[in-house]
Amino acid sequence: MRDAFHDELDSVGTTLVEMAQLVGAAMERATTALLTADLKLAEEVIAEDSRIDSLQYDLDARILNLLARQQPVAGDLRTLVTSLRMSADLERMGDLAHHIAKVARMRYPSTAVPPELSLTIQEMGKVAGKIITKAAHVIENHDLESAIQLEKDDDEMDKLHRKLFLTLLDDAWPHGIETAIDMTLLGRYYERCADHAVSVCRRVYFLVTGEYASEKA
Amino acid sequence: MRDAFHDELDSVGTTLVEMAQLVGAAMERATTALLTADLKLAEEVIAEDSRIDSLQYDLDARILNLLARQQPVAGDLRTLVTSLRMSADLERMGDLAHHIAKVARMRYPSTAVPPELSLTIQEMGKVAGKIITKAAHVIENHDLESAIQLEKDDDEMDKLHRKLFLTLLDDAWPHGIETAIDMTLLGRYYERCADHAVSVCRRVYFLVTGEYASEKA
Repeated sequence: MRDAFHDELDSVGTTLVEMAQLVGAAMERATTALLTADLKLAEEVIAEDSRIDSLQYDLDARILNLLARQQPVAGDLRTLVTSLRMSADLERMGDLAHHIAKVARMRYPSTAVPPELSLTIQEMGKVAGKIITKAAHVIENHDLESAIQLEKDDDEMDKLHRKLFLTLLDDAWPHGIETAIDMTLLGRYYERCADHAVSVCRRVYFLVTGEYASEKA
Repeated sequence: MRDAFHDELDSVGTTLVEMAQLVGAAMERATTALLTADLKLAEEVIAEDSRIDSLQYDLDARILNLLARQQPVAGDLRTLVTSLRMSADLERMGDLAHHIAKVARMRYPSTAVPPELSLTIQEMGKVAGKIITKAAHVIENHDLESAIQLEKDDDEMDKLHRKLFLTLLDDAWPHGIETAIDMTLLGRYYERCADHAVSVCRRVYFLVTGEYASEKA
């Protein structure tokens, strides 16, 4: 039978998975709001970010409480400290979905994304969704193979990010500076979101193996 | 007489201050490299980021070690956990200085910043420097008044950030899309750097008072 402490440790993991799922849903909805100029959806994503924030707040309080009451050592201590860091990554990923939804809202009733970049942004949203789903799976199952794979998914995001810049820099870019600024920031939000997901997976890798996954240059 | 544990706690604080000083120097040099197209200086900032990274790496290992060996409670536990978070903020601020230096290097021998925005970027660099110096002071002295003031300095950064966008959006903007992309990203790097400094100060505030400083909407 498990003791109460280890039940609580498990429930920390469950909350992290829940946070990742909420972030994944927020990212997907933010991307849809962005591509379809859906104001209502954008407002929902913006409002729901506080749910992710308060999940983090409660989780961190629980972790601190466990650290103080149980004074865990070795693996359990590492699990708790790593969980604190993962919750910070996930909270930030929620912020980035929130930023994307705010661009959608700011440009409503227009669509923030011009037709030339619609597909690229759709792909960035899809890759972000895939990465976040995989990160949730890695947190839940400590699946190191998926953790390593995620670095490759992140390469896909970097490729899309470069494609976005190439489109902006094409001499035929007809949409002017304001749209270029929006697209530069949006590209950065998606890319940073993927970076944080990679960071989450590296933390799981470290947690399980005690070693760092090889970092990209 | 202080015990060895509290000496080690103090030395965690000293390392955080040292990290903040390195980040401040990196930001100042990155801004100079950017405004004067100084390739050598840019390269130095890029190379020195690994020093900040390894300071964080060592510091985090020391903190984990203290958590495991000493099993601190109450204030000491809070200090160690908060220090972990501050080191993450400071490491990220170092990354942002590194990003700025990379823009300088990428555009060399041209100056990345066009004359219209030279003063704004100079000001953003100055405000970043002021904020980082103040954050180091807040870490070192737990000075809550300065911690609160820093939110106002951050408002100054936000104002400069808006000014940068207004310049980019002026119909007379003559520098095309590539420079607009550079400037959008640079603006974001300075702004995020200030955000992380605010975050550091909020953590100190929480550490000392057990309460959160009021957040801006």
